[in-house]
Order: sequence, then structure tokens, then C-alpha cells
Amino acid sequence: MTNSNLACVFCTSSGGRLLWQDESCRVILADEPGFAGFCRVIWQAHVREMTDLTASEREHLMRVVFAVEQVLRDTLQPDKINLASLGNVTPHLHWHVIPRYRSDSNFPDPVWNPPRRVNEVAPAVDFERLKLALRRLLDIVPT
Amino acid sequence: MTNSNLACVFCTSSGGRLLWQDESCRVILADEPGFAGFCRVIWQAHVREMTDLTASEREHLMRVVFAVEQVLRDTLQPDKINLASLGNVTPHLHWHVIPRYRSDSNFPDPVWNPPRRVNEVAPAVDFERLKLALRRLLDIVPT
Repeated sequence: MTNSNLACVFCTSSGGRLLWQDESCRVILADEPGFAGFCRVIWQAHVREMTDLTASEREHLMRVVFAVEQVLRDTLQPDKINLASLGNVTPHLHWHVIPRYRSDSNFPDPVWNPPRRVNEVAPAVDFERLKLALRRLLDIVPT
Repeated sequence: MTNSNLACVFCTSSGGRLLWQDESCRVILADEPGFAGFCRVIWQAHVREMTDLTASEREHLMRVVFAVEQVLRDTLQPDKINLASLGNVTPHLHWHVIPRYRSDSNFPDPVWNPPRRVNEVAPAVDFERLKLALRRLLDIVPT
């Protein structure tokens, strides 16, 4: 990996269970209790902001982000999708792609807020099904 | 405006001071005390998710989002940019483009969290300068 930073969690670990990757970015299923299906799309190199990428790199990364959104909608039928690239704590370019449910602990607040309630209904996430669906969408549709 | 919803705040009002717009989307400077330069890019029609748009509509919208990021970085030199499309409260497609500073009330938390401190240093935002910079970037670079 070029341009890596030994103090950065996304340079030194995958960040979760690997669902898909290419040379530019990877998709992981995050371990976020209470938010089943929470995925992250992580740029492989240690880059800070979207506008530090070239226009075609940005397009590629967003195509992957939207493929993850599509797969999560198709497989988990969330009430809403939340997309965010913050990086205040870990300034290594990554996108949160989060299926949200009216019944989840924080809805309608963002997942980073203090919870409003106990999440009693977590959808079952089939890792292999997500992986296959993502592969179909990203490896077959021409870029 | 096609596909509008009379109960939706982004269908019935601009959402802030208009910086730029075309037929598909608009950029507004939001009135968010404590977060100077907080912009939103709002899809003109009442659409819920990014994957409800066509691929070329998504590309167009993201090109505008990244132009706003570039202009905010160039004019305000924030410590970090935060990008988010949540829509849990207002499910009308919109992007938050937020310049963040280590000294702001919430850093490193997202802006929606409870504040950690009083924000003592707010950068001055020159509306006309932002407007001109955005126009230069979006109206001159070919699509």
C-alpha cells in the first residue's frame, strides 16, 4: 500500500470483515453492535479528503459507495440509508454506509449520537450474500 | 419543480441563502450558528436516496458536492471537511458539506452530537466570495 501511516488504524488493519476490494478501495462489514449491516468503504492509501483525489478516483470511490448502498437496500430493506465521510478522528478517507431502521437505538438521530432507546429488532445479516451481491454489482457492470 | 411534497421543508423553502443552482440541484449556505460555512447541496426534486437517481444524476450531484468542498477548503482552510447525506428527519436528498475546526463546539464529534465546548473562534464567511468561487468552478469546468 502506498502512502501509508503507521499510526492510522485503516493503514494498519482492514477495519472489519472484507466484503470486496480492488487496488483503490475496500468494502468492509463493520463490527458496530446495534447497527447490523453497517459497512465502510475505505480508500486504500492514506488520503485525507475527497478533493485530494483526482476526479476519476472520486468517481470510482463513489461508484463503490453507491453499489454498497444498493446491495444493503436490496438485501436488508432499511427505512433509510445514511452516508457519511467525516474523518475527524481517523483522517484516512472512508465512507460510512449505514442501513437505518425506525426501531434502531438512535433513529432519527445519527448513529454517533447518544442512543434514544434499546435496539430490540436487529435484522440478520448474511455476510456471504452481501459479498456475492456486491461482487455481482461491482465486478460485472463495466466501469 | 417536479415530484414535490408539500410537507417537506426542502420542497417548500430554499433551505438557506442560495449560492448556486441548476435544474437538478442547489447549493445553499445554511444558518447553523457555530458552524460557519456549513453548506447544503439539495436535489431539487423530492427523492429519497442516492440510488433512486440514475448514475449520471448521481455523478452530477457529487460533482457539485465536491466543488463545494473545494471552495470551502480554498476560502476557509478548515481542519477537516465533513460530508454526509442522512435524511432521517427530512427524507429529501441533500448533502451536508461542513468545514470543521479543532476549536469548534463539537470537534472531533459530528456536528449533530451534544457540544463539547463553546465555539470561540468562528471564521468570517464572505457570502459573495463563496458564490463567485462556486460559480467559477461549476459554470466554467465542462461537465
